[in-house]
Amino acid sequence: MGIFIFAISGALLAVRKNLDVFGMWMLAEVTGLGGGVLRDLIIGAVPPAAFTDLGYFLTPFAATVLVFFLHPEVERINRAVMVMDAAGLGLFCVTGTTKAHDHGLGLTFSAALGVATAVGGGVIRDVLAQEVPSLLRWDRDLYAVPALVGATIVAVLLHFHALTPFGSGCAAVAAFVLRLLAMRYGWRAPRAWHRRSTAREAQNPV
Amino acid sequence: MGIFIFAISGALLAVRKNLDVFGMWMLAEVTGLGGGVLRDLIIGAVPPAAFTDLGYFLTPFAATVLVFFLHPEVERINRAVMVMDAAGLGLFCVTGTTKAHDHGLGLTFSAALGVATAVGGGVIRDVLAQEVPSLLRWDRDLYAVPALVGATIVAVLLHFHALTPFGSGCAAVAAFVLRLLAMRYGWRAPRAWHRRSTAREAQNPV
Amino acid sequence: MGIFIFAISGALLAVRKNLDVFGMWMLAEVTGLGGGVLRDLIIGAVPPAAFTDLGYFLTPFAATVLVFFLHPEVERINRAVMVMDAAGLGLFCVTGTTKAHDHGLGLTFSAALGVATAVGGGVIRDVLAQEVPSLLRWDRDLYAVPALVGATIVAVLLHFHALTPFGSGCAAVAAFVLRLLAMRYGWRAPRAWHRRSTAREAQNPV
Repeated sequence: MGIFIFAISGALLAVRKNLDVFGMWMLAEVTGLGGGVLRDLIIGAVPPAAFTDLGYFLTPFAATVLVFFLHPEVERINRAVMVMDAAGLGLFCVTGTTKAHDHGLGLTFSAALGVATAVGGGVIRDVLAQEVPSLLRWDRDLYAVPALVGATIVAVLLHFHALTPFGSGCAAVAAFVLRLLAMRYGWRAPRAWHRRSTAREAQNPV
Repeated sequence: MGIFIFAISGALLAVRKNLDVFGMWMLAEVTGLGGGVLRDLIIGAVPPAAFTDLGYFLTPFAATVLVFFLHPEVERINRAVMVMDAAGLGLFCVTGTTKAHDHGLGLTFSAALGVATAVGGGVIRDVLAQEVPSLLRWDRDLYAVPALVGATIVAVLLHFHALTPFGSGCAAVAAFVLRLLAMRYGWRAPRAWHRRSTAREAQNPV
Repeated sequence: MGIFIFAISGALLAVRKNLDVFGMWMLAEVTGLGGGVLRDLIIGAVPPAAFTDLGYFLTPFAATVLVFFLHPEVERINRAVMVMDAAGLGLFCVTGTTKAHDHGLGLTFSAALGVATAVGGGVIRDVLAQEVPSLLRWDRDLYAVPALVGATIVAVLLHFHALTPFGSGCAAVAAFVLRLLAMRYGWRAPRAWHRRSTAREAQNPV
């Protein structure tokens, strides 16, 4: 599910950037699978799951077909896509953290890789489409923080050997709800203190 | 051979972007070797062939020297470079698919990695030089499709345990000819249907 | 030490690009650790050292906190930061070359990975922040060359089985001093010969 939604966001960006159908497909693949592939390379689980399970590979293809034929409709239900994206974020940060820990990484690193799994695909998508990753921009609602909270909850549960499916679900829901709240109320992270560059900023708002 | 041609395309882009001679060299290396390194990391063949065979490593260096001293001449024979690039594309998609299959990947994934080997270096080159990868742009002639066709032929032959050197050659030639035809007749891939964004598109053609 | 300085350069770029505090943190992490992670992936040392040693992981966090609260002060001591960056460059190209050789790579490749370790983080930083990597630009002082010299000295010493801590130190100091001299006297690398594009260049100086 998460892969499908992430892939849709990749294909939609491709439409916006005026790319052709193969560009759509490739952005869908890297957005949906990029975070997981990055995690698997780092923990040494090669070949990555995305290259051994046909379902993973075909899901972005389905997302591309959907967006190709129906993209005005998909854009119109943008709110629904954003909500599902938040759900995918919650799911990925939990599974990423758990998988990294299963491969013997420490808790801090497992949480870091959980966040990387959740946000990595979107970063690769933005880099390929020549945009400053929306993850990094201050004028976007919080995205990394909900993933960080979800991954941290899982890491804490792992520390106390108390990770149950129920606990995992709670962590995913926490990240999901936090992301929804950030979108609803426009929560943003602060920038550095004492910036003297207000003039430059006004002229050149990234 | 393929590496040499790809490396030349990297060094030429570096000249166009006004980079210095080390920028030329580095772009030549990543363009020539990037696709193969990416494939080797994913299939777990570390260290990648590019880091164990001195010939692979020195080829982009030779390409850089050639472009450094003779780049107006190299630009002038642009047509010949494009033809050789098509040959490299055909070769890489076949060897990439075969190598991935040798490492135990499924047929679909082998074909995907064959395409990644063929186009990966060019994508990394464009990202480093701050361009939207020409692979993804709708206003460029087909590039991924010929690689996809070549890789698919190899995968089908592998499925029937019928991959001979002759079959591999045919697949490479098919990709090569298809790419030449795409260049000759300006074949392009379609963009998404029902785009409402014609106005925006005219103002901002990527 | 090197990681801390590199991370500061990442966080400072994030401030300049107007990113929020999480963007600062992430740029700090990839700048400080990216080169080493890339090297470890290529030599097959997974999980990378950056994901097993908590000190590596927390250092960029400390750099982010420092820049967040004190960035005008950090900008003011820019010269000191540049000097320390040169020291980090010298250190990284030596340790990168040595570690790659310990994992059985040939001398040429070890030197190449030493350079990649030293400059990789900065390249990833610039790609994420949507800038042409300063490493590649002709209008910046030499950066790759000092790393190349340091890595080559180490490789030559390894070839003669004469790598002592003293020799390593000399190589690091050589790279460090060369980088300082390049900054002091504005040494730059040449661009390709016979460029006919002077007009285009003046209009569009990258």
